[in-house]
Amino acid sequence: MHNFADRLHAAIQNKKTPALVGLDPRFDWLPAEIVSAAEATHSSKADIVAAAFEEFCFRIIDVVAPLVPAVKPQAAFFEEWGPAGCAALQRVIKKARDAGLVVICDAKRGDIGSTAEAYARGYLAGENPDSALWAADCLTVNPYLGSDTLEPFVNVAVERGAGIYVLVRTSNPGAGTFQDRKTDGTNLYECVAAAVEELALKTKGAGHYGSIGAVVGATYPEELNQLRALMPHTPLLVPGYGSQGAGAGDVAGAFDEQGLGAIINSSRGINFAIRKAPYSEKFAPEEWEQAIEAATHDMIADLATHTPAGNLQ
Amino acid sequence: MHNFADRLHAAIQNKKTPALVGLDPRFDWLPAEIVSAAEATHSSKADIVAAAFEEFCFRIIDVVAPLVPAVKPQAAFFEEWGPAGCAALQRVIKKARDAGLVVICDAKRGDIGSTAEAYARGYLAGENPDSALWAADCLTVNPYLGSDTLEPFVNVAVERGAGIYVLVRTSNPGAGTFQDRKTDGTNLYECVAAAVEELALKTKGAGHYGSIGAVVGATYPEELNQLRALMPHTPLLVPGYGSQGAGAGDVAGAFDEQGLGAIINSSRGINFAIRKAPYSEKFAPEEWEQAIEAATHDMIADLATHTPAGNLQ
Repeated sequence: MHNFADRLHAAIQNKKTPALVGLDPRFDWLPAEIVSAAEATHSSKADIVAAAFEEFCFRIIDVVAPLVPAVKPQAAFFEEWGPAGCAALQRVIKKARDAGLVVICDAKRGDIGSTAEAYARGYLAGENPDSALWAADCLTVNPYLGSDTLEPFVNVAVERGAGIYVLVRTSNPGAGTFQDRKTDGTNLYECVAAAVEELALKTKGAGHYGSIGAVVGATYPEELNQLRALMPHTPLLVPGYGSQGAGAGDVAGAFDEQGLGAIINSSRGINFAIRKAPYSEKFAPEEWEQAIEAATHDMIADLATHTPAGNLQ
Repeated sequence: MHNFADRLHAAIQNKKTPALVGLDPRFDWLPAEIVSAAEATHSSKADIVAAAFEEFCFRIIDVVAPLVPAVKPQAAFFEEWGPAGCAALQRVIKKARDAGLVVICDAKRGDIGSTAEAYARGYLAGENPDSALWAADCLTVNPYLGSDTLEPFVNVAVERGAGIYVLVRTSNPGAGTFQDRKTDGTNLYECVAAAVEELALKTKGAGHYGSIGAVVGATYPEELNQLRALMPHTPLLVPGYGSQGAGAGDVAGAFDEQGLGAIINSSRGINFAIRKAPYSEKFAPEEWEQAIEAATHDMIADLATHTPAGNLQ
């Protein structure tokens, strides 16, 4: 069996970029053609939205699969639409796996004991897509409940060649409320980081990194540099690039010298590229897929120019 | 519109007990008749499990609806089984609402900005069961991402007469890893408690309590007493009674003098009462519903005898 970190890094080296495309469908922003096709074939609002989300994400996957190593569907946007939304999420994950992408399900789960194990068994398919009903390679996990609640996720991840990314320092404006509280000079997020690094070391594969990673927001570049140093064996998932305001310079510190050790996420900036300049000027509204392709190429180039990800080329 | 806390307290006063029945279906422990009925009508494992979970929870609801004010389905056990499990959860929530129960969906969600809003819109139906696809009255929420990430949940809760319970001090053995970290003499969980109490005050209805509550484990009675004092307007959801080891004496401090302000959860101890003495001795395996009824009556009597919940009688 192949370790998650090794599989992820092979995919990054194969595509020569650490760009991660988030899949964050929002009904009000979907292309008109997708909405009308869904309306023509479904009747309830939930079924229409779910069908439209599925088609929209399928089309994004078709565009980005040749370009990037991984995608990150955001579970919340699907779940909002009930079981129909959940079924769409399941098919989106499967489609992305079939397209050769590493899939990180961004569901930020966390619970105790056997409950955490149920989430882990449900979402961590790892190397074998048939081993879980949500066939993700990896899941985002919330650490608030304590170290013992990470263990069930770690165990299932190791068993299945899957990974998790534990929330360490998030990208929102109020991230610091609890995460920045200092005890004896150590922030809470540093304390979580220490626990994660320990798990990363325990789950190291053939390469330098473990299968237990950390979410560290790009919107706090100083903390990102510091956390990279604190967690040398921990793969980082870095949200906040693009629409949330961080640039390639802000995420440079997430990488090792080879350009490995981090994936940089952009969701809205890619999914809805057509809604913003320069893409809204270059492309007609119905050319939204070209806009997605152009925005993905631009992100890849930006990362290659301004971060050690250039060494992957 | 009726405030969640007021609705919950009316239900508690109506049933004269703060006993909360968790719905935690586990396939290996289900009654044989339920498993064979599901196997006779479904073919895939996921469909069989989902159908069996649904029937099992429906039967529990039929037994406990006349006895207790509220139920708490655990989302993880349903989600593990994919979209079929999710559809079963949706129907279980609806069935419980139709039976007049307050439904707290235990999904421990948490995310930033518009993502948190998607979870809130999806799970917080509040007073009108048609306003969300998972028609819960209330959702459990994880605070790690920061105060600003609680706001979307609070806003939707207020708008819909729904509630949330924020994780403050959980019931697992390792709860303290992060929650007990002290900053200037204040534990992290006390800091979260202060944020929650502020939100509770802001969402006060006609009664003494707000619609923003806190999860505080029964397995740490000292902290429970302390947190009750720190959060005088915050309704508490107290897990850990029964199978997790806490007794009625341990949860007494959660209540005000009238016996209000807290609901005490038991999941396994009720759902699978038939598997343990004294119920396994009193009832034959096929009398599992009588065992559930007896265990529920015993829990209600235990709380009435050893806590201020006796004043509800």
